[in-house]
Amino acid sequence: MPQPQLPEPAHAQVDSMLSRKFGKEIANYFSGSPLNRVSFLRTDHAFLSAALRHPSTSFLLFNSLSPLARDPTKLEYASFKDVQPLVGDDPYSKNEEQMVSEYNSSVTVPQLLFLGLDEREKSGFEWTIYHGSPYFALDVTPKGTICSTAEKLIESMKSRGLQFVEGRMHMSLPAEQAAIYAQARALLDWNARNPFCAQCGQPTLSINAGTKRTCPPKDLASLINTTSIGSTTATTPTADRPDCATRKGISNLCFPRTDPTVIMAVVSADSERILLGRQKRWPKYWYSTLAGFVEPAESVEEAVRREVWEESGVTLGRVVIHSTQPWPYPANLMIGAIGQCTPGGEEILLKHDPELEDAKWVTLAEVKEALHVGTSGLGEEAGEGYKEGGLRLPPRTAIANQLLSAVTGGFLEGGNGGSKM
Amino acid sequence: MPQPQLPEPAHAQVDSMLSRKFGKEIANYFSGSPLNRVSFLRTDHAFLSAALRHPSTSFLLFNSLSPLARDPTKLEYASFKDVQPLVGDDPYSKNEEQMVSEYNSSVTVPQLLFLGLDEREKSGFEWTIYHGSPYFALDVTPKGTICSTAEKLIESMKSRGLQFVEGRMHMSLPAEQAAIYAQARALLDWNARNPFCAQCGQPTLSINAGTKRTCPPKDLASLINTTSIGSTTATTPTADRPDCATRKGISNLCFPRTDPTVIMAVVSADSERILLGRQKRWPKYWYSTLAGFVEPAESVEEAVRREVWEESGVTLGRVVIHSTQPWPYPANLMIGAIGQCTPGGEEILLKHDPELEDAKWVTLAEVKEALHVGTSGLGEEAGEGYKEGGLRLPPRTAIANQLLSAVTGGFLEGGNGGSKM
Ligand SMILES: [Zn+2]
Ligand SMILES: [Zn+2]
Repeated sequence: MPQPQLPEPAHAQVDSMLSRKFGKEIANYFSGSPLNRVSFLRTDHAFLSAALRHPSTSFLLFNSLSPLARDPTKLEYASFKDVQPLVGDDPYSKNEEQMVSEYNSSVTVPQLLFLGLDEREKSGFEWTIYHGSPYFALDVTPKGTICSTAEKLIESMKSRGLQFVEGRMHMSLPAEQAAIYAQARALLDWNARNPFCAQCGQPTLSINAGTKRTCPPKDLASLINTTSIGSTTATTPTADRPDCATRKGISNLCFPRTDPTVIMAVVSADSERILLGRQKRWPKYWYSTLAGFVEPAESVEEAVRREVWEESGVTLGRVVIHSTQPWPYPANLMIGAIGQCTPGGEEILLKHDPELEDAKWVTLAEVKEALHVGTSGLGEEAGEGYKEGGLRLPPRTAIANQLLSAVTGGFLEGGNGGSKM
Repeated sequence: MPQPQLPEPAHAQVDSMLSRKFGKEIANYFSGSPLNRVSFLRTDHAFLSAALRHPSTSFLLFNSLSPLARDPTKLEYASFKDVQPLVGDDPYSKNEEQMVSEYNSSVTVPQLLFLGLDEREKSGFEWTIYHGSPYFALDVTPKGTICSTAEKLIESMKSRGLQFVEGRMHMSLPAEQAAIYAQARALLDWNARNPFCAQCGQPTLSINAGTKRTCPPKDLASLINTTSIGSTTATTPTADRPDCATRKGISNLCFPRTDPTVIMAVVSADSERILLGRQKRWPKYWYSTLAGFVEPAESVEEAVRREVWEESGVTLGRVVIHSTQPWPYPANLMIGAIGQCTPGGEEILLKHDPELEDAKWVTLAEVKEALHVGTSGLGEEAGEGYKEGGLRLPPRTAIANQLLSAVTGGFLEGGNGGSKM
């Protein structure tokens, strides 16, 4: 399968002192969304109501986190008419204060997300000084009180020859579609993993067009339950819920979670070799850069040095951050770095944290050759010219590939060394 | 108050091609911990048991997130003997499998954290190939079934002339102590905010020495409750809890949350001015760099461009990441960047997202002068030589200060331009 084009970051390649000193900016796969998120309009229910119901509006549907598509190389969108039976005539007719005060945990509300405006499209949709085609995502997974309506919507999409594509085949999407998919998937997944408040254990309500969850002080469902089951105590039925600390001031628990992850190309002290590691479950000859999660109260630079030492025993000096990549499985922010070994710090020891099956030093020339003929998705065929036994590396859609391209392309000497084709 | 020394990152200043090209690494306040986290030993209860009870072990106590200290410039530690009445003779005598199977949500377990080993201290503590003085943190906030024991422990510490320092006065701690405090505070706060599973709403159990929470399949407390209250249904009492998706495979909900945040020095297209903003609640003349949270499925570079446009209307081109800073209020990772304006993109418009009271372009010379005489903590006195009406900026412990120092120190031309004194 041909590898998709990588994104071009808007404006980032304008000539400037920064670009002259640091070279071209590398935009990694899953970044480069064409949408303006206009995040400050997410609390404006009148804006959301108008955007949702505009004829130019596109809805990306997900069934259990699988997106609607023609095939793995092309997403397909539904219209407001298509989704109206599921979302209702105007789910944004009320403001958030009203929605919170009328919260009823026994009613299933299909998860909607406002993604942004595509300002390149002259769609006729305008709102104060903003314009463009609105994009939403909608979770159509059949469940709760919306089960049969969702099933009907899914069937009508399938009858058009469309499918809900499973797995990570979305790596074959063109860059802009991949970025829209990533935003939608990350937020739907976060909402699906957080139906309850981690602070108090009570069910939560989606607000801010899918980008925030709140722990309402009342739940009308508790009135219904009290009446129908019959309380053994003498208290009057009430919709009030117990106190929750998230309702006092700001709590990060209300906002989507993004897990910062470090991934690093490690060069030897003499700048002639690169450290690569492999996991046991990978196919033969496969290696990549080392990676790991940033821990609480650690800088990125420290996390890079800690992870490299824990996984390989190698000691790093100076660490430089190269570029970053959103990774929506489920919510990672990959922070790509390049680190250089201290003199004499190259000795490999795998027994601290036995996460890797192997780690080894490879010459720049061998890595360069593998970037040329040995890259692909995990388990896929290598490119033309690959000889059995040669080093295999991740494809250009992976930031590991970009980091290795930078180092072998002269990042240490000057320029950013990126490989953009 | 004199500003504390900043950390020196271990090994990072070794001469290398990376350091020659990119200059000295800037280590920001709250990074630079002297402890080796040996994170792979956190699941080894025999290691934890031995480390906890060693005579060289230090316990940093927190009461409602306030650390035990002599004064705001010096943390103080308790010994195992001090904390034994609260934590028991050996809270790590059982392995995690046993702890999960015996989970009882009605018993309050004081939150313990293993922080790491200080390998510089020849303490006599050794474990396979690792050595050093063990460091733990302990939450002594009086609550639940440990209320009176915790109160006694707090009183005994106060009788030694020690205090639990409130607020953010810890910015006056020496760098290494600040980093230990940050690690402990971030993890205690995360545990305190997540007593319930966001996936299923049931109470969770702390494991991995305070760095993971799990949703146990059984809860012995439900047996007790069923018996004492008397069930109206005919089911047999059982400790089994409902299913939870976090028990199948890996869920990020089990791990500490860190919120990536961008903070950026923005330079004009001609590299002669810097964009600064101020919030309404700040004292007169105070300005700083712009900042904001990274959104799901956004690269850091994109988040920098989006936040600058949303808050100020300014359009950025190339963005370069400079350095990072852990920020334990409660769990931020500050990613410091430098971005350059597109030609003609300098026009300020505050009305997109009205978060700032003002934003303005300031000459490099004025910023340089303010870095010299106008920095301090928010609301504190400026340095010597400051004249009323002059620009005020954050202290060196804030990454905003380091970014502005870099830009005015020649970051765009060559070298990293950092100000380390
Ligand atoms: Zn709550
Ligand atoms: Zn659970």
